[in-house]
Amino acid sequence: MNEADRAGLLARLAATPGCDWRTDADAMAPYLAEQRGLYRGAALAVALPQDTAAVSALVRACARLDLALVPQGGNTGLCGGAVAQDAARQVVVSLERLDRIRAIDPANFTLTAEAGCIVQRVREAAADENRLFPLSFGADGSARLGGALSTNAGGTNVLRYGNARELTLGLEVVLADGQVWDGLTALRKDNTGYDLKQLFIGAEGTLGIITAAVVKLFPLPRETATAWLACPSVEACVAVFGRLRDASGDAVTGCELLSRTALDFVLRHMPGARDPLDAPARWYLLVELTSSSASAGLATALEAVLEQCLNNGQISDAAVAASARQAAEFWRLREGVAEVQRHEGASIKNDVAVPVSAVPAFVAEASAAVQVACPGLRVCAFGHIGDGNLHFNLSQPVGMPVEQFLAQWDTLTGLVNAVVARHRGSISAEHGIGLLKRDALAQHEPAVAIDLMRRVKAALDPQGRLNPGKLLPPTQE
Amino acid sequence: MNEADRAGLLARLAATPGCDWRTDADAMAPYLAEQRGLYRGAALAVALPQDTAAVSALVRACARLDLALVPQGGNTGLCGGAVAQDAARQVVVSLERLDRIRAIDPANFTLTAEAGCIVQRVREAAADENRLFPLSFGADGSARLGGALSTNAGGTNVLRYGNARELTLGLEVVLADGQVWDGLTALRKDNTGYDLKQLFIGAEGTLGIITAAVVKLFPLPRETATAWLACPSVEACVAVFGRLRDASGDAVTGCELLSRTALDFVLRHMPGARDPLDAPARWYLLVELTSSSASAGLATALEAVLEQCLNNGQISDAAVAASARQAAEFWRLREGVAEVQRHEGASIKNDVAVPVSAVPAFVAEASAAVQVACPGLRVCAFGHIGDGNLHFNLSQPVGMPVEQFLAQWDTLTGLVNAVVARHRGSISAEHGIGLLKRDALAQHEPAVAIDLMRRVKAALDPQGRLNPGKLLPPTQE
Repeated sequence: MNEADRAGLLARLAATPGCDWRTDADAMAPYLAEQRGLYRGAALAVALPQDTAAVSALVRACARLDLALVPQGGNTGLCGGAVAQDAARQVVVSLERLDRIRAIDPANFTLTAEAGCIVQRVREAAADENRLFPLSFGADGSARLGGALSTNAGGTNVLRYGNARELTLGLEVVLADGQVWDGLTALRKDNTGYDLKQLFIGAEGTLGIITAAVVKLFPLPRETATAWLACPSVEACVAVFGRLRDASGDAVTGCELLSRTALDFVLRHMPGARDPLDAPARWYLLVELTSSSASAGLATALEAVLEQCLNNGQISDAAVAASARQAAEFWRLREGVAEVQRHEGASIKNDVAVPVSAVPAFVAEASAAVQVACPGLRVCAFGHIGDGNLHFNLSQPVGMPVEQFLAQWDTLTGLVNAVVARHRGSISAEHGIGLLKRDALAQHEPAVAIDLMRRVKAALDPQGRLNPGKLLPPTQE
Repeated sequence: MNEADRAGLLARLAATPGCDWRTDADAMAPYLAEQRGLYRGAALAVALPQDTAAVSALVRACARLDLALVPQGGNTGLCGGAVAQDAARQVVVSLERLDRIRAIDPANFTLTAEAGCIVQRVREAAADENRLFPLSFGADGSARLGGALSTNAGGTNVLRYGNARELTLGLEVVLADGQVWDGLTALRKDNTGYDLKQLFIGAEGTLGIITAAVVKLFPLPRETATAWLACPSVEACVAVFGRLRDASGDAVTGCELLSRTALDFVLRHMPGARDPLDAPARWYLLVELTSSSASAGLATALEAVLEQCLNNGQISDAAVAASARQAAEFWRLREGVAEVQRHEGASIKNDVAVPVSAVPAFVAEASAAVQVACPGLRVCAFGHIGDGNLHFNLSQPVGMPVEQFLAQWDTLTGLVNAVVARHRGSISAEHGIGLLKRDALAQHEPAVAIDLMRRVKAALDPQGRLNPGKLLPPTQE
């Protein structure tokens, strides 16, 4: 596209009511960056609409000019779902100015917020009204609500409270033709026809642009019991998890697995990290029980289970947090894993899920497969074992050149995904598809499922104007 | 259709592998009956496929013969969603022979069952493995799982465990063209593209025929605390509910509202029923707390809240169940309401939901509106106040001829629905749309929502072969 054509398009877009624009390279750069450096973004312009009406006007303007739209929240996604890829024909739509908390209804246990609200801020607003918004994940200090819903974000609280989909009661969405669907109801039960909001949650902006949502709130926790457990095997970890759910009144809000390798990485690279236990073990569980009752007896329930498990060998040692500060130290070990891996060289990350009962077999089989294919590779497995969701990350062999290791990306990921398929698991548990797993999705899912997805896409976005090329591979013409 | 044409069609259908048939009037009668007598069914035949492959073959056979299919589970629906309406061109598909529990995975807290399983039997199968399947509603001794999922059934446990949609992890569905989509995954987290199962849950068989499902299980409750409370107002009931959620560690699994009128009907007509309290009150709450921990201290938490509420006037009296038997008596009063209304003459039933915080205003405004329009009418309001879901039923004035009362159906329902709309509520909280509320849905929902629903229907069932005429009004040609 020559400069005159570009200037002409930008001039016509500039007339869109309620939109600010970023059009020069420097100003656009943060919206085109992709945090892992896997993709290089390119866009005609970045639009910053001020409200839902402006998003609607923008979508209509783009339709008139035959431009596509790439919706973007906090740009913290891990699969390239918010990366624009065409400097001539794609406009990034940042929702960051739609950042109002519209309503909090403590008696209904709901909150209504716009898509651009930072997730952490939504949680704080709920806490101010003595309510819990449970969505919590690593990037939630910069991720925005619309993006979290569009990727059906998970995190550490899914076990007890559900993922973003289960936390959503209502949506407001700008459709591909610019119409606004106002589905901002705050109802626990509503069987009036197809549940349209389900279409847009987790659709990565390919079916509509979420502009606001009604989310569920819960009573604020008042009592917490946290422990760091050493386990001889993944089987033992699964057994401990089941026992804890049973014995605690289903108060398990966190059940995180770490391999010794993962803990070693943290101990080696995170300042101030120290092993909570004296002797090393093969596997660790970080468990957290919470209750909104201040007299739920969680510590008693936890200690009773730990005693049983110490006796039957399902755990070899345990440290119960004596204070909120010590509990925070345990969590810091867990949360450090994602960051410290880069100090160990290149890594290939797999975000997979299998049934909880299949986690032990998955870990054994997948570890064996990748270590045979790439001797010396270090499996850094950790994640949300209560959801069957593992971050099965592969750190390069010590001393291997980075390029040599990364050249095995497709082979190693393919081996992991084959084990996932054998256990009827998911190749993307919580991160989504975006660009990164688009081709893998098409291979992994049966043709009938891909065909259904294409039919839904064609029904809601017949011109292919919303986040083109994401989630589904382009159709062969 | 003449007899020879009919016989010809039936002969061709009879060749479908794996299907039994009911073709004479007597044998078809139970599948054509509609329990409230609002509709008179008519079908060419009733098919009883033995498994998923037979359902697939049947759908393909009907496509070849240009016949439509009306899927049916236990035929307990309240909106006519399973009623066939064309003796020449519609085939009822009863799923009753697909009644196998395919798998139970206690470590994964999941169960896989076929669509024809009775809901209560699924619950029993889970309990045999020390697990809870929480879906529980009045008709669940004859309702079947596929129907419960197709109508997104609710019931008394939604508050804590969610409705049928939230309890479903995976589905197997026969599509409109006879293809089988196998989405029977048992995963808590799976962000691999559009969440296709959401399309079929609550779609009343108009987008596909559910043949099997993976559902979530929970720890089995071991401790229960139940109480019957008298409250001066609906506002007080809402406040008590919030306090109980907070103070109990979110252990409230039941919070049911009854008006004095509802209780009076039960006391008058249900053998053995007696008022748990001495003095009459305007409103009652039946509250139930449960925990899988045997030492959760629920009774203590409950009594502390009751003491506070007695002191601040939010309740005027309370009876705490001293035994499981007494708790069952309280529940029998609540469950009796649906049945006893017929002894008070005709009634017009409204299954509505509003935000919990709007329930008091809804009850006041809707009661005033209908009593002005029809003096002497008795509002029999009861339901799941914790979900904002009321069965706002209108019993005829004493002595009014039935026909005269029922002639006001549209007027009275219209008045109720207008108040629902003012509070952004639902005109069908848990019963669905079917035939009964099809036109009301089209009026109540914005045009953009109806248009989206039509696009989804056209994408998945372009020939309109699945449960035609249900949920959406036929398009004007």
